[in-house]
Parts: sequence; C-alpha cells; structure tokens
Amino acid sequence: MMIKFEEALRIVLENTLSPEESVVKLEDSYGRVLYKDVYAERDMPPFDKSAVDGYALKREEIGKPLTVLENIQAGYAPAKEIVSGTCSKIMTGAMVPAGADFVIMVEDTLEENGVMRLREPSDEFRKRNNICYKGEDIKKDDTLLKAGTIITAAETAILASSGYSVVSVSKVPTAGILSTGDEIVEPHITPSVSQIRNSNGWQLRAQAIATGANVRYYGIVSDNRELLKEALGKATDECDITIITGGVSAGDFDYVPEIIKECGFEILFNKVAVQPGKPSTFAVKREGSGKSGVLKVIFALPGNPVSSLIQFEMLIKPYIIKSMGGHYLPLKLSLPAAEDFKRKNAERLSLIPVVINSNGTFSAVRYNGSAHITAMAGADAIAEIPEGVTLIAAGERATLHLFR
Amino acid sequence: MMIKFEEALRIVLENTLSPEESVVKLEDSYGRVLYKDVYAERDMPPFDKSAVDGYALKREEIGKPLTVLENIQAGYAPAKEIVSGTCSKIMTGAMVPAGADFVIMVEDTLEENGVMRLREPSDEFRKRNNICYKGEDIKKDDTLLKAGTIITAAETAILASSGYSVVSVSKVPTAGILSTGDEIVEPHITPSVSQIRNSNGWQLRAQAIATGANVRYYGIVSDNRELLKEALGKATDECDITIITGGVSAGDFDYVPEIIKECGFEILFNKVAVQPGKPSTFAVKREGSGKSGVLKVIFALPGNPVSSLIQFEMLIKPYIIKSMGGHYLPLKLSLPAAEDFKRKNAERLSLIPVVINSNGTFSAVRYNGSAHITAMAGADAIAEIPEGVTLIAAGERATLHLFR
Repeated sequence: MMIKFEEALRIVLENTLSPEESVVKLEDSYGRVLYKDVYAERDMPPFDKSAVDGYALKREEIGKPLTVLENIQAGYAPAKEIVSGTCSKIMTGAMVPAGADFVIMVEDTLEENGVMRLREPSDEFRKRNNICYKGEDIKKDDTLLKAGTIITAAETAILASSGYSVVSVSKVPTAGILSTGDEIVEPHITPSVSQIRNSNGWQLRAQAIATGANVRYYGIVSDNRELLKEALGKATDECDITIITGGVSAGDFDYVPEIIKECGFEILFNKVAVQPGKPSTFAVKREGSGKSGVLKVIFALPGNPVSSLIQFEMLIKPYIIKSMGGHYLPLKLSLPAAEDFKRKNAERLSLIPVVINSNGTFSAVRYNGSAHITAMAGADAIAEIPEGVTLIAAGERATLHLFR
Repeated sequence: MMIKFEEALRIVLENTLSPEESVVKLEDSYGRVLYKDVYAERDMPPFDKSAVDGYALKREEIGKPLTVLENIQAGYAPAKEIVSGTCSKIMTGAMVPAGADFVIMVEDTLEENGVMRLREPSDEFRKRNNICYKGEDIKKDDTLLKAGTIITAAETAILASSGYSVVSVSKVPTAGILSTGDEIVEPHITPSVSQIRNSNGWQLRAQAIATGANVRYYGIVSDNRELLKEALGKATDECDITIITGGVSAGDFDYVPEIIKECGFEILFNKVAVQPGKPSTFAVKREGSGKSGVLKVIFALPGNPVSSLIQFEMLIKPYIIKSMGGHYLPLKLSLPAAEDFKRKNAERLSLIPVVINSNGTFSAVRYNGSAHITAMAGADAIAEIPEGVTLIAAGERATLHLFR
C-alpha cells in the first residue's frame, strides 16, 4: 500500500529509539544532543558591567572635570565608590563601581594630572550609558538550552559560560550501511562492462557520519538469498539502525522485503508516493508485542544515489536525531521559482534538487533522473512539487527544504 | 584606520595560505577540500541501462505476445539479442540487450509459459521507454568535481562511482585558539564576583573544528604583557592560524596589537566598520618582504561571544577554507523582513542574528548586544543592515548570510 510522504515521516518519527544518557567532556560534545536542560547558574552579566573602555561617573556630572580615583581592570572588583567630583577609569568587561550610573568612552575624554575632562562638547554620547546591567541577558536559573538541542558553536559557548565542563548528552545510535546487488563493486575494483561502482553505500556512510552516528560499513552483499539473510542478520544484530540499499523493487532478485520479515522485523511501510524514492521501506523490531518500545529498525532504500541521498536527509536524519531526543527537520521555507518547473507525471510528490539564487529565488540543477550522481553536488535544497501539480511557473512559490 | 567589512573580507581572502597536497583514503575524506580535479573514467551509465524491472523489447512490437528469451539480472551481460517476436525479462540497473529499444514495466505485463503479454490496453506507458542511455548523465573524461570542492555526501558518491578509493585533498591548517583577560576563567573554575567564564575560546574551538581545521586550544592568558607575548609567540610558532580574543580594544591593558607586531607580524587592518566586531584585527607573517607568500596569520577578535561567532563565520571560515584551496562563503540571499528592524546608530554595517520563517521572511532573535550569549543559539542566519540605514520596514528585503 502506497502512503504519502508526510505519513511516512510521521510513522518514522513515531517509532524512534529511546535516548539514553551519556556524560562527555565539553570538548567532546560538539554535534551531540543534550539529554538534560541546561540552566544558568547565575545572572549574566553577573554584575553591572562596562561595555566600553572609559570613565565611570555620575550622569549628572557629565561635562565637569573629575578626579580619577582608580583604574578598574576587568576581572577585579572596584576599590572605591564614585562620589561627587570623582570618576574611575574602567576597562571593557569590568565591574561598574558603586555610585556610578554612566560610562563615557575613552575616545571622548582627555586625562591630565589625574583629572578627566571631555574632549568635545558633543552631546551624541549621552544617548547610551554603556552599562550592561546585572541579569539583563540571562537570569539565574533561566533555562538556557532545552534537552534535545544539538550542540553547535553557540551552544558550546552557552555551556562553557555556565560552567558545564562536562555535559549530559544522549548516546549515539550505531548505524550500519549495507548495499546489495551483483551489478555493483567497491571503488577500488574495476567493474566489468555490465557493472558499476558502489556509490550509495559510501554516500550513506558520509551522511550517517555527518549526523554524529557511530557508523559500521558492511560493504556489498550479492543478490543471493542466503548471503543476504546472513548479512542483514549480522548488521541488525550489531546495529540500532540498519540502512540497506537496492533489492527493494519488484525485481525477481529483490529479496530484501521478505528477508526483513525473516529477521523478525515488522514492515511499517514499503511504498511512498514520492519521486524519487517510491520503494522506500521502514521496518521495526519491538521489545514486546503491540506498540511497545522500538529496539531496532531497518531502512531499505532504492539503489539510486539521488533517491537515497534525499530519503536519508528527509527521513533518516530526522529519525537518528529524534532517537537521540533531538529535533531536526531540514529548514523549510517558501521561495519563488526563477524559471518554470514542468513535469508530465504528477501522480506523486516530487522532490527536486535545486540551487538558491542570491535574489531569493530557486533554480533546478541539471538532473536526468535518480541515478544522475552529479545532480546533488552543489544543490542547496530540495524543492517540492506537490501531487497533482505539473507546473510551477516562474515567480510562483514552492516549499524548499534546506539541508543543514 | 577603519575599513569597510567587504574590504576586510577582500584583504583576508587575498592573504590565504598556500594549499598543499595530501592523499587520504575515501573513508577519511569527508569534509576535506579536493586538491585536484576529479574526472569520469567512463561514461555514466556505462551502458544502456534499464530504469525499471520489466521486459526489454522492440517498441514496434508493444502489444504483441512475445517469447521471453532470458532473465537479465543487474550485473550480468545479456546473452541473447532481441529479434522479432521475442523479449527478455530485465531487472532495474541491468544492461538492455541488443535489438531492444524499449522496457515495459513488469506491473504492466503478465508472463505465462514463457510468453509475455500486456496486462491492460492502456497507452500511458508508451510515454517513457525506461532506458537510461550510455553516457546520458556523464561522459568519459568529464570533469566531475573541481579542485577546491568541499567533500560532503554527494561528492563522496561521485568519488566512489569513479573509482577514487584514495583522494587527493589539501592538508588542513592548524588553528590555535587563545583567550585573554583577567576577568575570565575556564568552565570548571568558579568565577569570583567580578569574573565570568571563558565562552569565546570554547565557541571558537567548536567553530574551527567544524571547518575541519586541526585545532590547538591554548586556554586563557592573563592581561600581562610578558605572559601574553610568550603565549602568542608559542601559539604562532605551533599554528598556521592563531585566533586570539580580547585585549584588542582601546583599554589600558589591551596589549594585543603591539605584541602582534613584536612577534614579527604585519597588521593589515585593526578596525572594521561593522557592528558587532569593530576591533577585529588581521595580521600576517610573510616568507620574505613585500607581497610574497603568507606563512602564518593572526586573527584578533573582540572578547564578546556574539562578535567573535559572527566574525569567525564571515571572515575566518572563508579564510580557512580558501587556505585549503576551497571556496566558501555563507549562502547569501535576499529575503523580506517579517517585522520592522530599527536602529539608532547607522554609522556601521550591522550584522544581526535572525531566524528564517517558513514563509520565506526573517525575524530578529532577542538580542541585547554583543555579550548576549543565547542570541546565536537557534539563529539561522545573519542579516545585514547597511551603513546609513536606520530602518528596514516589514516586507522590505535585506541580505542574509546562511551558515552551512
């Protein structure tokens, strides 16, 4: 039974693995998914802080010559309170002294014999007092990052600033990559005239590595029932997620669906109304019966590289990240087409590799079909042509999915 | 002298390091930059290939009952030529036999006693012959990937399909990360009331790792002339690219610019008309005098996390990738603002963290200034507010830079 792509995505995301906690050092946390919320241990800034190098003083005394009490360096507490007739020199990031409610930038001043004067009578600088107030960015105990957040550079800064030298993250699942077909050989082998090299397996391995999964590469298994069963059994024993390509069509040597069942997996769908990627298959093995916890899964994808690349980005990457408790979908946005997009057969949703132009429109990449391996290199996004639509006219909007 | 941001980017990209070749295994090539062009060793498809599971026949004999000669499996050469009154069963990816110019999908047929007949008299299937012709995707000796291409999943597939089990890539430069300031402590240390934790160093470390650079983390050096000179000397000795944060403002303890010179580096700019990131500094050490080859560089960034994150993405990441012979700039596109963007001071170009909405507009993230560490988490892009512009009205377009 053919299901819609949104339905396939829903089923996939309803059958994710259960995240488990793992504690890693901050330096090893890049790309991982937070297992627990992260809280602020104190206000940020933790004190009223000078935003500039300058002089801290009372606003009402701007313009008067003021005696400089001290030079407050960042990292050190001020020693003296500002009283009438005085100011203190202060560095960026340093604590504003008691009694001061304004910092004049050093560029607007002159200091001579311990007395600070204004350089110019301009009033421009009065607009900003150059103080960042205690807690104006973050309050103590604020949730800074939610469990499920993917740790990139900005999150690393937040973790570091709140003292998280170790971080609670989710364990990464193990993904196994297996390719089938007597027509494919590995890159270091010279193919016969009727063979081609394995590109899918290597591509999926790269995509899985990019999600942060532990990847096991199982190579190629030939179109032989027994060998295929043995290979799939081994991969599913050793891995949480097994991704197999080829052998899922209606061909006489396409044993994959029956072997999936023989390995104790339940097929939740095996036909998706999407072009390319129609024979995409998803199967689960559960802890017990009924709707209980999912232990392991198999994604079986068609053997064409464009299909498998798109299906990985749209289905498997969200699956892997949700299995770590994270939330990820390609960035979805609606942009106008630069040129007409036409197709003859509008039975299924089409997912088409496109480039985004600098004026905010999109254009198709040259694309002969799902085996056209160079089509995806240089593509910025995938555009949707909905079921039933044969034309997206230039200027008309379509939904794009940007890979990140 | 203050220069414009575009000028700073131009200077940075004119002073990149020279790429050097390194040969790695295909499985270790993800994220690396190609040192040499990649060519097709043969046509793709290498033979006329069936796009479906079905029967290969002569188009003019569609509709006639045809004797099935053989079953052509993918990976094996056909044994028999198609002559009048015959067809051969054929699997997806298999070689189309001589004499055939059409493949009927198996779903449209019935086979009985070695004879294939059409299931339905529908003419729909005549539209496509389901043959992918030899060389229709790629011709032998075509350039598949240019030197300078960053290897991601699609490029991995192309390399694998053309037999590149080892790949010629550029060596990765070593980037050193050094933070300055008596006011900062490392995440595992409890800060005093006037101190904060080091977030910049960790953030830059994560960003540098994401570019693929070898990263050395040098921690925090205090605002002391001698210690700073020693630390910067060590980092620049050991690294191709040194990134130092803090100590670049006009403060009394901001020794970084003079120490950069004492280490034998020439400062090419030290003030950029950009908000945040004005004191961004770039210095080079050359092999000889004049405009000769750049040996090493220093980027000195302001100590605020939002500034340093943006400056890294906009200046340093393109620098690192070009130093490997690659070409990278954030994906630039023009989108309309969802709400008004206002600012008082229009002296400099502003770079503002924003989210992209699903309707193709963008919105600002809550952002108190360059120390507001949570502003960048969740941002999709950086929007430009050009010099002299105080308002971008809702619906008006601005230039966005998407990080990839």
